[in-house]
Amino acid sequence: MKLDLCFSPDLLPLYDLRGQVAVIVDVFRATSTIATALHQGMTAVYPVTTVAECIALGHERGCLTASERDGVRAAGVDIGNSPFELLHEDYPVRGRELAISTTNGTKALRHSLAAEALVCGAFINLTAVADFCLAQQRDILVVAAGWKGKFCLEDTLLGGALAERLLPHGLDISESDAALTAYQLWQNARADLPGYLHQSAALRRLRELEANDDYLFCTQVDTYPDVLPLWDGSKLVRG
Amino acid sequence: MKLDLCFSPDLLPLYDLRGQVAVIVDVFRATSTIATALHQGMTAVYPVTTVAECIALGHERGCLTASERDGVRAAGVDIGNSPFELLHEDYPVRGRELAISTTNGTKALRHSLAAEALVCGAFINLTAVADFCLAQQRDILVVAAGWKGKFCLEDTLLGGALAERLLPHGLDISESDAALTAYQLWQNARADLPGYLHQSAALRRLRELEANDDYLFCTQVDTYPDVLPLWDGSKLVRG
Repeated sequence: MKLDLCFSPDLLPLYDLRGQVAVIVDVFRATSTIATALHQGMTAVYPVTTVAECIALGHERGCLTASERDGVRAAGVDIGNSPFELLHEDYPVRGRELAISTTNGTKALRHSLAAEALVCGAFINLTAVADFCLAQQRDILVVAAGWKGKFCLEDTLLGGALAERLLPHGLDISESDAALTAYQLWQNARADLPGYLHQSAALRRLRELEANDDYLFCTQVDTYPDVLPLWDGSKLVRG
Repeated sequence: MKLDLCFSPDLLPLYDLRGQVAVIVDVFRATSTIATALHQGMTAVYPVTTVAECIALGHERGCLTASERDGVRAAGVDIGNSPFELLHEDYPVRGRELAISTTNGTKALRHSLAAEALVCGAFINLTAVADFCLAQQRDILVVAAGWKGKFCLEDTLLGGALAERLLPHGLDISESDAALTAYQLWQNARADLPGYLHQSAALRRLRELEANDDYLFCTQVDTYPDVLPLWDGSKLVRG
């Protein structure tokens, strides 16, 4: 069982995902929001590329629609990309489906469908992802959504945290400089993840959006340790 | 003066190099070899994409020809990609020109020509690169050659070492998660760079090539502190 990291969806053509587990990571905020949706009793999540597709799924299937561009809620949808919008009482979500289009996370997921199994990872559901990987016993590619194709710290750190969980169970990260880097960074960050990420570019973006609550929520480990967003071939369901 | 890092030539389309200094880095081994060539009195270095172009420059200009594919010397050229081949007595190099085609380094360079100034960086000429950047007072993009498009530790560490040199002179790395990562990794590595890189994928590749001397040579800081490979519009010359 090996683990590698792809730092950007733009680099996915370099990786062969066949037979592997793909762990899609967009800590701020798509995969955190998706895990929250499933925890809140939503029955399915449709990740889509465009806002128009998102709105169409709202009409066709009655999905709650979620979308952001550059971090801000897109026009014509119900909610943005904050997990808190699924925790508030404003929208009844239990039993409904979610259609979500995000800047980076959806792209990472859509380009990883060649994988044998595909799940969404965030800090809030780290244990669920680690347990799934352990049960699968396949090589793992952590696909960091990044920011507009570029490297970002928070998704990389999730890869390091996942590696730490799996290393005592025989995981091999020695063939991947990316995985070694993620693991080292996580060692620096693990004692105080929110504090560590204060230096990151993502925090500045979220601050500009006045989304500090999101920041704290998304950097908590194992708020939902048994929520696994699992791709069933057409949508994400609770695995 | 800001510094950012591009972890792969495949991501260069995401960066706008206009007005910036591009520092091309392929520690193992292209940029180390290029710095060595200029230190040894070679008058110019032509980085080319294909082995055929390399051989053609040998015929047309009398260049010494250097090329490797997957780390091994290509057929039909004079030497591979080891700096030691330029240090030995086997080939008279002073006063000659070098044509070099490498797997990763040439690609990084050829895709960075939009920069205002372009230089080659390695550990062996770190001070020369830092001094040039200080004199330029422009934003800097460190372009890591990586390995077949993927992230590699050693080129990233060079970016961190360069950042360390420039931070006391007003460099800003706060807007780049990639630069923050490189700087942190360098803090872990700086006390014993060869030892630190023992974990890296590159070392395994060089070991397979029985190139351990190259490994030690390329991880020495400032062997040639005044050698700056500078792009003059058509070739690299000593700046």
